[in-house]
Amino acid sequence: MKVSESVKEHTVFLNPDEIPTSWYNILPDLPAPPDPYLDPGDMKPVNPQKMLRLFAQELVMQEISTERYIKIPDEVLDAYLRLPRPTPLVRAKRLEAFLKTPAQIYYKCEYLSPAGSHKPNTAIAQAYYNMKQGTERVVTETGAGQWGSSLAMSSALFGLKCRVYMVRISYKQKPGRRVMMETYGAEVLPSPSNNTKFGRSLVEKDPEHHGSLGIAITEAVEDTLTDEKTRYCLGSVLNHVLTHQSIVGLEAKKQFEMIDVYPDVICGCIGGGSNFAGFAYPFMTDKLKGKTNTDFVACEPRAVPSTTKGIYTYDFGDSGEMTPLVRMYTLGHKYAAPPIHSGGLRYHGKAPSLCLLINKGYMRSVAYHQNEVFEAAKTLAQTEGLITAPETAHNVKYAIDEALRCKQTGEKKVIAFNMCGHGLLDLQAYDDFLNHKLQDWEPTEINVPTYVK
Amino acid sequence: MKVSESVKEHTVFLNPDEIPTSWYNILPDLPAPPDPYLDPGDMKPVNPQKMLRLFAQELVMQEISTERYIKIPDEVLDAYLRLPRPTPLVRAKRLEAFLKTPAQIYYKCEYLSPAGSHKPNTAIAQAYYNMKQGTERVVTETGAGQWGSSLAMSSALFGLKCRVYMVRISYKQKPGRRVMMETYGAEVLPSPSNNTKFGRSLVEKDPEHHGSLGIAITEAVEDTLTDEKTRYCLGSVLNHVLTHQSIVGLEAKKQFEMIDVYPDVICGCIGGGSNFAGFAYPFMTDKLKGKTNTDFVACEPRAVPSTTKGIYTYDFGDSGEMTPLVRMYTLGHKYAAPPIHSGGLRYHGKAPSLCLLINKGYMRSVAYHQNEVFEAAKTLAQTEGLITAPETAHNVKYAIDEALRCKQTGEKKVIAFNMCGHGLLDLQAYDDFLNHKLQDWEPTEINVPTYVK
Repeated sequence: MKVSESVKEHTVFLNPDEIPTSWYNILPDLPAPPDPYLDPGDMKPVNPQKMLRLFAQELVMQEISTERYIKIPDEVLDAYLRLPRPTPLVRAKRLEAFLKTPAQIYYKCEYLSPAGSHKPNTAIAQAYYNMKQGTERVVTETGAGQWGSSLAMSSALFGLKCRVYMVRISYKQKPGRRVMMETYGAEVLPSPSNNTKFGRSLVEKDPEHHGSLGIAITEAVEDTLTDEKTRYCLGSVLNHVLTHQSIVGLEAKKQFEMIDVYPDVICGCIGGGSNFAGFAYPFMTDKLKGKTNTDFVACEPRAVPSTTKGIYTYDFGDSGEMTPLVRMYTLGHKYAAPPIHSGGLRYHGKAPSLCLLINKGYMRSVAYHQNEVFEAAKTLAQTEGLITAPETAHNVKYAIDEALRCKQTGEKKVIAFNMCGHGLLDLQAYDDFLNHKLQDWEPTEINVPTYVK
Repeated sequence: MKVSESVKEHTVFLNPDEIPTSWYNILPDLPAPPDPYLDPGDMKPVNPQKMLRLFAQELVMQEISTERYIKIPDEVLDAYLRLPRPTPLVRAKRLEAFLKTPAQIYYKCEYLSPAGSHKPNTAIAQAYYNMKQGTERVVTETGAGQWGSSLAMSSALFGLKCRVYMVRISYKQKPGRRVMMETYGAEVLPSPSNNTKFGRSLVEKDPEHHGSLGIAITEAVEDTLTDEKTRYCLGSVLNHVLTHQSIVGLEAKKQFEMIDVYPDVICGCIGGGSNFAGFAYPFMTDKLKGKTNTDFVACEPRAVPSTTKGIYTYDFGDSGEMTPLVRMYTLGHKYAAPPIHSGGLRYHGKAPSLCLLINKGYMRSVAYHQNEVFEAAKTLAQTEGLITAPETAHNVKYAIDEALRCKQTGEKKVIAFNMCGHGLLDLQAYDDFLNHKLQDWEPTEINVPTYVK
């Protein structure tokens, strides 16, 4: 007996030999040349040579590459297959039925990785290139821990030591992610720590300093510079990170072709931007060529409204002013993000290419409060059976709203997004939501300095 | 460019239209007729009619069916595909390399479901058949919560109300699983509760009674009998549960055929026995026909050594003596299981067919302490990138030991097991292990009454 065709249509698999073997780099296809990163010392474009001390050489080359496709090394493909990849594309037909919408909703299953999110797509590549060039140790920072646990896992796979500076308040309140990293053999330090000059200056004043992502970045960078065999890794924002994540959208595009469907709406949550860009850019390339008119919608928290209330200008990537200046939508690099549960969306800026596309009108953005976001997540859990990450729940909220609009208009839009993480390490947030203890937060003070007129 | 053949071999996918469309029922192939369940009132075989008040009719029919293959309904297949199924079969080649073994180690990825384990394979089927016959509400018990969260999820998918009696000590110490169930819309009560006569009798004496699986079963059964539109569901032990889990082994068998490999050793952890049976029985059928001589190894905790130190006799399935008598290896139905972290392996008995196969010499069993089990889990995490459930870590330990024996002998054995759950809701246990706070437990008093000479 054969599985009926109608059943098969709702879960689209790819075979291992259909996995994309190159990443897609959007830089050559952007509607305007990307603005260079500036050295805050002389306000001139950063010399790539200076970046080699911080990042693996191949990653620096990819960061500025204008090649449209970058070959994925066999060792990285091998690790991808074992995540496992390709991930399925699933039609959320139970959610559609519950909403009584004529719209179709599809999601890509990136939550299936051992780390529980899409982050290993770039962590594996970064660990691999570092191993290849003889790096002995990688250092990074992490907030809630999705990125840190992905890099810890990837470091174990490629035999690298790994140190993670974890924002102290998360280190104390969310031990699960710390334990994951330690199980993978990584060293996890609460930040600010006594391990760096910058950290000590803060710990001396306040031994229980809560820390912030900006402080942790500064510590990770300072740590990296102390040792020749150490390199720094970043989990989002940078172009090479977005390029690695394109594996998600490239697979999804093949899967949509297999069922002869093309999305009308692509939505995604944005923290640094790599999740949304990874899914969206392989489709965006068609829009940039004038072939399609897909509606790209970036979803962010109202408490951290980088692209809906921020300024499009040059700003630092970290609070400690150690990174180059980057042109992006920003809330100011000292923005005090409210304590929302979507730890991955609490960053003050966003990826430069994503900001350029929003600024030029190729994408738009929306912002939500966390209670309405968790309400959407609850609806998803009770229809599709999946408990999603609070970050991902932002685009689930948009997809549901759009599907309900279609119910009014009768439009049969195809809505697609990346289910970029599960929520099994965020259950306290669900508990707070179910018990009406979740607070909605307005943005704090937005203060963006002017570095470039 | 094509993905290299060597890479493809290490992750074996099945397409959606290759999913098995029937379950395998081992009853007609057993080396001896299965011993009937006995009614403790008259010590005669239980009349199936009496079971209909407790279980959905189709499940009772499957429980006693002698059909070798049972068709999987389309609605169940549809839900399976969206878990997603088929799940990949992965060769643990990084673990092999680390062990420097000539053996090959393969695992099946059942941890990928939204509930994090293999349990939805039967929870979906049980919820479906109950929905079909008009059941409005299902009731069950849960210890650590793997089963309860799977039934809660499946109940949401098929529009059933769900109530779960959760052992109070777990309810308090492991809120994550409770929150999962509540997010799916289920009602979770700490057991013993004030909701049943049996529960009240215990709570009156001790309001903070820790509870046990046996007590929770008794409460769930009592609750079921209060309402005509309610049915009880069980997550392991019974034959229909093992039959549903055969989807795992049937898929794995196809996948091994695709790469022209047949396992020499199949190991699995046993709590009630459905995980191991589900993976092993489709291969066991070949051994029963004399075609193969695969070594089947059941792995259990030394603290709960049902098959290594228990008695093969008739005993109750629950502590409250409400179930029929079942012939199995048992530690006695009032066994006080030590507080090991493998909550799913703390049951006093095991599935009758599994016990029969062990008793007849077709399977054998081994027992481990939890520290050695977690050491194996750490090795797995740092080589394969996967943090497994403490239960699953028992067979990971066996696989590693067997692979190391092969290193000594030079044998190229193929070792296979089911990676039946991830450990992301068990990170406290990993933390305790990494910090040397984990205690190894000897069995408590084994006291097996004699009901049948």
